[in-house]
Amino acid sequence: MQSQMRNLKYHVAATLDGFIAREDDSVDCFPMNLSPEHIMDYLNSLASEYDTVLMGRGTYEPGLKVGVTDPYPSLETYVFSRTMKESPDPRVHLVREDAVGFVRELKTRPGKQTDMSTVIRAAKMTVPKDIYLAGGGPLAKSLFDAGLIDEVIVKLNPVLIGSGKTLAPQLPRQVELELISTKAYRNGIVLLQYAVKR
Amino acid sequence: MQSQMRNLKYHVAATLDGFIAREDDSVDCFPMNLSPEHIMDYLNSLASEYDTVLMGRGTYEPGLKVGVTDPYPSLETYVFSRTMKESPDPRVHLVREDAVGFVRELKTRPGKQTDMSTVIRAAKMTVPKDIYLAGGGPLAKSLFDAGLIDEVIVKLNPVLIGSGKTLAPQLPRQVELELISTKAYRNGIVLLQYAVKR
Repeated sequence: MQSQMRNLKYHVAATLDGFIAREDDSVDCFPMNLSPEHIMDYLNSLASEYDTVLMGRGTYEPGLKVGVTDPYPSLETYVFSRTMKESPDPRVHLVREDAVGFVRELKTRPGKQTDMSTVIRAAKMTVPKDIYLAGGGPLAKSLFDAGLIDEVIVKLNPVLIGSGKTLAPQLPRQVELELISTKAYRNGIVLLQYAVKR
Repeated sequence: MQSQMRNLKYHVAATLDGFIAREDDSVDCFPMNLSPEHIMDYLNSLASEYDTVLMGRGTYEPGLKVGVTDPYPSLETYVFSRTMKESPDPRVHLVREDAVGFVRELKTRPGKQTDMSTVIRAAKMTVPKDIYLAGGGPLAKSLFDAGLIDEVIVKLNPVLIGSGKTLAPQLPRQVELELISTKAYRNGIVLLQYAVKR
């Protein structure tokens, strides 16, 4: 059986002007007129596409403040922080140093297998589930710099906020992308999927 | 004959992370693999959709540095600046103060008429051409604040640059948009058209 390294996908909501949160990490700027189709697509990707989620402290803490200690119960969860002392939840792993080394190793682990289609079975391939990078910018920046991010998936919200936390702050060099797909939802969100060019 | 106020459309290229230029106003971050279809759509909109173009000094000057004094020869052209002393080109009008008052008045002027379709002729309506706001951020911010921008049209480029000039810097309140259309080009540019909600 052949195997392949798992993909790391930076999958994040943003405003049209490129912000993934306000300066204080709050995300109340994103319109709440949810589309059932958009929710179904997102839940499907959580259930079938990913087995692991990674996030920085700034992405984890807003949920924590309202009592959500385990935001993705179906996924193996890692929070990256140099300042947190311990994880508030036994299911959530705290990674306190060297995010790049940790993620590089994580991508080589076999991971769960996706449901096998007839084609995949016939080719005797194993297809591991992907790793979901939920944010935020500083963690994404480190992983872009190290060449570890394979895809960028942006849920582009129909709003401009003018300032806030950027998708990938202070990149030392620009990241070239290749458009894979677009999908527009009835609530005005546009889902954009890109591969990172090597 | 009924007439209607002209629309002001903020039509601008941006990176996926929301920047319309680098910090020094250069735009070499945008991939040059141009798509013939994209160019045709853009030239068509210049020829048939707009009769007037507005831009800030930061948007005008990069062209000026390479000798382009009249970047949109088919359009009535206004450059907004408090620091420029005079226009480098007789076709380019320099507006040195009160962009908001000037643009408010400009929108009420009749403007050129679009080519009349049978439907429009039958309805005895006049449909004036629109005003093209080509950038940059500070001018757009003033005009958003004054409620003068009717549409936002973004040519979203498949690249992340990490920092630069933002689409609409330091808005005092967020601008809600309604998605009108999307179009993906073969070169990975996605054209996104939104109406500004009132």
